[in-house]
Amino acid sequence: MNNKIKIAIVGYGNVARGVHKSILKNNKVNNDMELVGIISRRPEQVKEEVKEINVYKNDINDWMGLEADVAILCGGSAKDLPKNGPYYAKHFNTVDSFDTHNHIGPYIDEETQRKMQGYLKDMNDAAKASGNTSAISIGWDPGTFSLERVLANAFFPGAKAYGFYGLTEKGGLSMGHSDAVRRIEGVVDARQYTHAIPKAIERVRSGENPDLEPGEMHWRECFVVLDKYGDKDRIEHEIKTMPNYFKPYKTRVNFISQREIERNHKEMPHDGLVIAVGKTGNGNIAKIEYKCEWDSNPEATGSIMVAYARGIYRFNKEGKTGAFSILDFPASYASPHSLEILTKNFM
Amino acid sequence: MNNKIKIAIVGYGNVARGVHKSILKNNKVNNDMELVGIISRRPEQVKEEVKEINVYKNDINDWMGLEADVAILCGGSAKDLPKNGPYYAKHFNTVDSFDTHNHIGPYIDEETQRKMQGYLKDMNDAAKASGNTSAISIGWDPGTFSLERVLANAFFPGAKAYGFYGLTEKGGLSMGHSDAVRRIEGVVDARQYTHAIPKAIERVRSGENPDLEPGEMHWRECFVVLDKYGDKDRIEHEIKTMPNYFKPYKTRVNFISQREIERNHKEMPHDGLVIAVGKTGNGNIAKIEYKCEWDSNPEATGSIMVAYARGIYRFNKEGKTGAFSILDFPASYASPHSLEILTKNFM
Repeated sequence: MNNKIKIAIVGYGNVARGVHKSILKNNKVNNDMELVGIISRRPEQVKEEVKEINVYKNDINDWMGLEADVAILCGGSAKDLPKNGPYYAKHFNTVDSFDTHNHIGPYIDEETQRKMQGYLKDMNDAAKASGNTSAISIGWDPGTFSLERVLANAFFPGAKAYGFYGLTEKGGLSMGHSDAVRRIEGVVDARQYTHAIPKAIERVRSGENPDLEPGEMHWRECFVVLDKYGDKDRIEHEIKTMPNYFKPYKTRVNFISQREIERNHKEMPHDGLVIAVGKTGNGNIAKIEYKCEWDSNPEATGSIMVAYARGIYRFNKEGKTGAFSILDFPASYASPHSLEILTKNFM
Repeated sequence: MNNKIKIAIVGYGNVARGVHKSILKNNKVNNDMELVGIISRRPEQVKEEVKEINVYKNDINDWMGLEADVAILCGGSAKDLPKNGPYYAKHFNTVDSFDTHNHIGPYIDEETQRKMQGYLKDMNDAAKASGNTSAISIGWDPGTFSLERVLANAFFPGAKAYGFYGLTEKGGLSMGHSDAVRRIEGVVDARQYTHAIPKAIERVRSGENPDLEPGEMHWRECFVVLDKYGDKDRIEHEIKTMPNYFKPYKTRVNFISQREIERNHKEMPHDGLVIAVGKTGNGNIAKIEYKCEWDSNPEATGSIMVAYARGIYRFNKEGKTGAFSILDFPASYASPHSLEILTKNFM
């Protein structure tokens, strides 16, 4: 018997591995949580990777006995979470990193043209029905960046918050865009780095509050490995004209070898910046910048999700059921520390 | 009849003027609050400055009829708030910017050597006794910087957060240090700017998590106007050896004319930076930087206080009485926007 928060991980991809490492570190440093199991659609493979943890198949008959205070859902936003999120929210308190920004609230489904109530409401209905509590869209964007956008706008009425990504020389690795390039015929492997355009950042910093098109804020850089039939011109054209993903942006395509991918592009760095410039009094500038830089984007995202498992655990104990976003949690609820420690060391 | 939050201001110095302007701006942009009165120890003077607002003497017989949902307390932390905070918390829901960091929780009073329970508890007792709700230490430090320290440490166990001030060329104007210099015999007027030491910032950014003495992180610059008997050498010596304020720091003292103060030092700019560098996985760096830059420090502080008047109003309506810090409020509670708008435009 102990008072640690018992955490399960659903899925075992890159973010899940980040969650796993973060739980181990929290267990060591803060001593307030432990990993009790992993649910995966390929349990045999996962078992080989994590020998000391119980691994369950993603089948209720297999994980039924698993007692977890919180399940951290590490599936993707495109296919996994819309279905699995509400399913697991019926059985566990959950934390996920659903990141399709315009599907969090109500939206029109592009394929069917049906009106959808959105992920927040789907999760709220599912969690409430079972007396569970869910934190959705936890990470950095959506996540801490959302928090900063809300606060800056609350402090400085009408202030617009801008998001920039890829301020480092290497840029920010976008998994979604890398996947989109990999789906092109003739492409064996690919990486896409997003780069912020410094001139746009300077315009925002100046307090101009400019209207900026996506292509004025960022450009995209692809590193592509071709198969032996791959046609460079066709593939470069397909990338640069891909709607939404690349068309609105200046894009540079570099063809490289698989060996070069292994050597220079195995890491998953990402970084971003929120800038909001408001005015106080008679035109005085008030500027807030929130910047993060991750050597490993999935590990950082996982670390943030793990912190909010504390919030979900506490909300549920307090009888607050349903689904919540990062905007609904006091910062103290993400912290392992007592009010006394927070007051003494962090205020 | 309207649903606007009715706000009173107690005190009418620089921060209060910032609060006043922020309420006017919020009333215009967000249409959710209004100023209903000012309580001051010099009502006649204030009346001349703000003709359209009811001004009351700081005497309960004068302001007794004032109906305010929230009173924003703009007194100083040294003399005013320790006494007036709990007094007003008995009569109003309050927001203040108490900024004596080590007196928020329990502490030993230096003069009497008595054990004190601290401002948070004093305010909590007073507010709770009357069914009121108080937000204490709202501003940027303590305030948003506290929030960022707690979150960074929650995400990355054991990560140390560092605070730097005065990163701009001019530096950050410290009212407390300016006052301390003005109290020296022979000094007519003075301004003190704090400057961050860039080398220390670089060390923190590198992930070294160094132990830094105050004097390694900042240096101080004074602009001093002497009276006609003022002895430069004695005054420079008194400044540089003043315990706590200047002794631990490299300090530069510039003697200037009153005219130069009027011309170049009438503004109250300040800026600061929180940096926390954690590690994820096997030594991957995770870095968060939160920076703010204010042309007017009191106006920015006042703007943040006004946003949290919304949180206090809502907490009180929900029956949450007592005293709270910025760590206890969900970000959504500081915002004028509905859940729908927040989900759609800010996530």
